[in-house]
Amino acid sequence: MTEILPHVNDEVLPAEYELNQPEPEHCPGPESDMAGKSDACGGCANKEICESLPKGPDPDIPLITDNLSGIEHKILVLSGKGGVGKSTFAAMLSWALSADEDLQVGAMDLDICGPSLPHMLGCIKETVHESNSGWTPVYVTDNLATMSIQYMLPEDDSAIIWRGSKKNLLIKKFLKDVDWDKLDYLVIDTPPGTSDEHISINKYMRESGIDGALVVTTPQEVALLDVRKEIDFCKKAGINILGLVENMSGFVCPNCKGESQIFKATTGGGEALCKELGIKFLGSVPLDPRIGKSCDMGESFLDNYPDSPASSAVLNVVEALRDAVGDV
Amino acid sequence: MTEILPHVNDEVLPAEYELNQPEPEHCPGPESDMAGKSDACGGCANKEICESLPKGPDPDIPLITDNLSGIEHKILVLSGKGGVGKSTFAAMLSWALSADEDLQVGAMDLDICGPSLPHMLGCIKETVHESNSGWTPVYVTDNLATMSIQYMLPEDDSAIIWRGSKKNLLIKKFLKDVDWDKLDYLVIDTPPGTSDEHISINKYMRESGIDGALVVTTPQEVALLDVRKEIDFCKKAGINILGLVENMSGFVCPNCKGESQIFKATTGGGEALCKELGIKFLGSVPLDPRIGKSCDMGESFLDNYPDSPASSAVLNVVEALRDAVGDV
Repeated sequence: MTEILPHVNDEVLPAEYELNQPEPEHCPGPESDMAGKSDACGGCANKEICESLPKGPDPDIPLITDNLSGIEHKILVLSGKGGVGKSTFAAMLSWALSADEDLQVGAMDLDICGPSLPHMLGCIKETVHESNSGWTPVYVTDNLATMSIQYMLPEDDSAIIWRGSKKNLLIKKFLKDVDWDKLDYLVIDTPPGTSDEHISINKYMRESGIDGALVVTTPQEVALLDVRKEIDFCKKAGINILGLVENMSGFVCPNCKGESQIFKATTGGGEALCKELGIKFLGSVPLDPRIGKSCDMGESFLDNYPDSPASSAVLNVVEALRDAVGDV
Repeated sequence: MTEILPHVNDEVLPAEYELNQPEPEHCPGPESDMAGKSDACGGCANKEICESLPKGPDPDIPLITDNLSGIEHKILVLSGKGGVGKSTFAAMLSWALSADEDLQVGAMDLDICGPSLPHMLGCIKETVHESNSGWTPVYVTDNLATMSIQYMLPEDDSAIIWRGSKKNLLIKKFLKDVDWDKLDYLVIDTPPGTSDEHISINKYMRESGIDGALVVTTPQEVALLDVRKEIDFCKKAGINILGLVENMSGFVCPNCKGESQIFKATTGGGEALCKELGIKFLGSVPLDPRIGKSCDMGESFLDNYPDSPASSAVLNVVEALRDAVGDV
């Protein structure tokens, strides 16, 4: 039934492109010189839109590249599905990296409609300040800077009822106008899915260079199904996959110390998926309720429970990740 | 810092509206007769776009209203955050309603980038057929029809790399061109957030009438934070809230029968939130790993484990929901 679907994936489309109908099968693509002129364009309701679209590169991209030029490593935290611990892991990764006082770390929250990073990093009440050098990020510690839409809301509970086009504008500002200064790492937390935020961040940062993506999953089949889609996205979008981490892998009962597989793997979980797809498996993190608790309190689980198996597991993944980006 | 944010929430904007810059503070709104002409429009980079936008109502909306006219009750399943069990609950709600052979039930999957319903309902390999009366939904049983983008993918793993505007087109087709026929219930599973899918479904179905939203959360503070945003969205968008269900409320260790709060409530969880906001609390569903397992197998947990506490909890919520829509 592929004939029902529009034929062009949006990774090639500009944010300003709005369809009157799905593209025809042999659509040359709206950025092509043939846009609006090929045989397939005759009778297509998008013909005029395609003809009128700007054909050159986005003039903001060199500005973004310049603004991010002081950042050594840029890591996307991705997963197809929500609730697998993407933001939790992004927060723990940020805490872990910034525990090294010699590293300058930034954490950028691309989840515009459901920002969680500020809460997990304990700075939800902060606000962003504008200066001559741009928007000043919120500093959690001396060497951990963050940016999120949460810092701009009139009330903590305010819904951000935005279509994709407006989210793209804000993401562009986060990249172009935030005064990140020099960073060793920029950790970019993304929302679930493969839509505007993902297409835009990849397009806007193509010249700056993304080191790659850390893919987060749980062992469940429904999570793996979406993760496969996310990996397909990375391949199509040309994003390097640094590795995969399996979260919530097993639960140790605090009463009897017996282990339960709460999000049980039906098909071998993350490690089997990595083998199948030739992706590096960075490790498993057990389900420890104190992780969620620490995140709810805006504190570092790694500081609160340094001797826990989950802390060791997280730190092992962070080491493997630093290794994967060539920082050893 | 609200002055940094664009001032108009997109619930009032047409899907075709693309911004050159955030709206100015006293923006009359692009659908207003004053669009492009008010004092605030002078110097705004969106002026020409606003002037040229069609001002009348969307001509597809009467067609949608007609196509959905045989559906008695329409329920949105919402939650700000991903991974709280929205699709799982939507699937269980669909199984529970269709267990009554006298009810005709439909389940529509609005999660375009991360569809899970077909997997959970055990029909991931099915495809959609087109006929003179529109797209025929996939029937799980004689009285349970479903529609999802998953049925249209060339491969199960294919990423849907679509910006919001293209997702809106498909959602419109699901509402306008799917031959739902007569239904007692249409259960609509949504993706996380408050963006294109949510704005569009509300706009397209405004004349058809949505009975209301079932809001799903877990007890964790980070989930409640996003749920507060979703509730704010419902209020601003004029969507009736039927009630809230708290998922993954407690875990009973299969070894020692001791209960653990894995997704622990820091602030009283879903029930306290309901009291605070004046929303009906429909009940709690305990965390039972067999729920995820049944979903992974595409089977009904309620059929597989009818005597489990979780099954009773789900059925109680379904009863409360039927009561809330006046079907008793």
